[in-house]
Amino acid sequence: MQDAQDIIDTAHRMADAARAAILPFFRTQLVADNKWQTGFDPVTEADRAGERAMREVLASRRPADSILGEEYGATQGTSGLTWILDPIDGTRAFLCGAASWGVLIGLSDGQDIIYGLIDQPYTRERFEGGLGQARFLSDAGQRPLAARRVDLSQATLLTTYPEVGTADEAAAFRRVAGQVRLTRYGLDCYAYGLLALGQVDLVIEAGLQSYDIAGPLAVVRAAGGIVTDWQGGPAHHGGQVIAAASAELHRAALALLNAGGAA
Amino acid sequence: MQDAQDIIDTAHRMADAARAAILPFFRTQLVADNKWQTGFDPVTEADRAGERAMREVLASRRPADSILGEEYGATQGTSGLTWILDPIDGTRAFLCGAASWGVLIGLSDGQDIIYGLIDQPYTRERFEGGLGQARFLSDAGQRPLAARRVDLSQATLLTTYPEVGTADEAAAFRRVAGQVRLTRYGLDCYAYGLLALGQVDLVIEAGLQSYDIAGPLAVVRAAGGIVTDWQGGPAHHGGQVIAAASAELHRAALALLNAGGAA
Repeated sequence: MQDAQDIIDTAHRMADAARAAILPFFRTQLVADNKWQTGFDPVTEADRAGERAMREVLASRRPADSILGEEYGATQGTSGLTWILDPIDGTRAFLCGAASWGVLIGLSDGQDIIYGLIDQPYTRERFEGGLGQARFLSDAGQRPLAARRVDLSQATLLTTYPEVGTADEAAAFRRVAGQVRLTRYGLDCYAYGLLALGQVDLVIEAGLQSYDIAGPLAVVRAAGGIVTDWQGGPAHHGGQVIAAASAELHRAALALLNAGGAA
Repeated sequence: MQDAQDIIDTAHRMADAARAAILPFFRTQLVADNKWQTGFDPVTEADRAGERAMREVLASRRPADSILGEEYGATQGTSGLTWILDPIDGTRAFLCGAASWGVLIGLSDGQDIIYGLIDQPYTRERFEGGLGQARFLSDAGQRPLAARRVDLSQATLLTTYPEVGTADEAAAFRRVAGQVRLTRYGLDCYAYGLLALGQVDLVIEAGLQSYDIAGPLAVVRAAGGIVTDWQGGPAHHGGQVIAAASAELHRAALALLNAGGAA
């Protein structure tokens, strides 16, 4: 892609702008309002400020691109490229003061996600994948992203909520959890970054939106991992998502996720 | 206490030394061995190096104090004071690369815990309570610790594992979880720091060791919170522990924890 460097530079500027917009709200008293009539899904001023900041960078630098944002919806462009933005993935973690939330940026060419970022503003950590990049950046410098290779019995599995989704989805998750070495909860989008760093091996979630997975998908893939839905199809529309560090691990986990009928 | 400042200075030097000893092992390939014949409780070289580093500071600065450490056991002193050390609380988080683990330092006068620290080496965050201190320290500066005041229905509840402990302990936990606004998992000792910062309201755990709770207990208490066992008695021996941001919240949660017989 001829403007790959411009895309990469733009994404980093967007993430920098989102950091500056969101951080003043972190660990302060927030008035959370409810986006949905049922359930608890706080939307904060920080969320909105973060998306506005990213949209301003795009309006200035790449006005022909389309935008799909969690907070402000769709903006149609002409370039064939669409930026998919989640200013704060993990708003519940954000409200708890836990730094597992992140700014998610993904870029679609209409067929697939070709580039993405996960940024953690408080810890100043950034995971970047696609268009030739596979990097972890922090104040300590940068290192390449690379998923590790372990067997299922030695794998670490992450998800955010123990209930995962529906009862069937939870049962499918537990079939995998029963075969791995360690299962941990509560890490939101940061889980995909840890997989790309080679620290953990599987992330399995359900009920995702497209903007929850676009950025993480590009990061995990750039690190050598695989991201699909629970049937092995494309994951970029959200729903049931599995990220695995290797093809072998992906195959083994998919078989367990879909073993319900045989029980 | 006449040597309060010396105790405080010593504790910070211990935490600094533990940081330097442990951080080189974080997010690298570790060979975890099993401390227990059953279950998964990795002890790393980092854990041992951290405790040795803290013991060296004590040997140099306060040789008359006793030490109770997770890794190297008890060392008898003559001062009547005992340092209670957990070099890495949250070894599973550590192995996942998640920064919810911490270095825990508590000080007992034989009757109670009079001072404590929770230190997160990777994020360079430190929570300190007791002997007149109630502070959160980070590279951004310092701010006072102060637990907030909310009703149970508005409270956020944290614990590390969804299974909590025994089936009865899990059922008791779920009685509280059913009445709060939000329940989150996986934060290890960092949960007590977030309570002391006024970000969350309840931490409920079971199966703790004395070194798991000494430091957090002092931090939460200094922030205005309450830490007891599930019967309302002393928590510093470990076991079932509840930390609450206020007396009202503590009372309401204790009633639910002990409501099992009435069901």
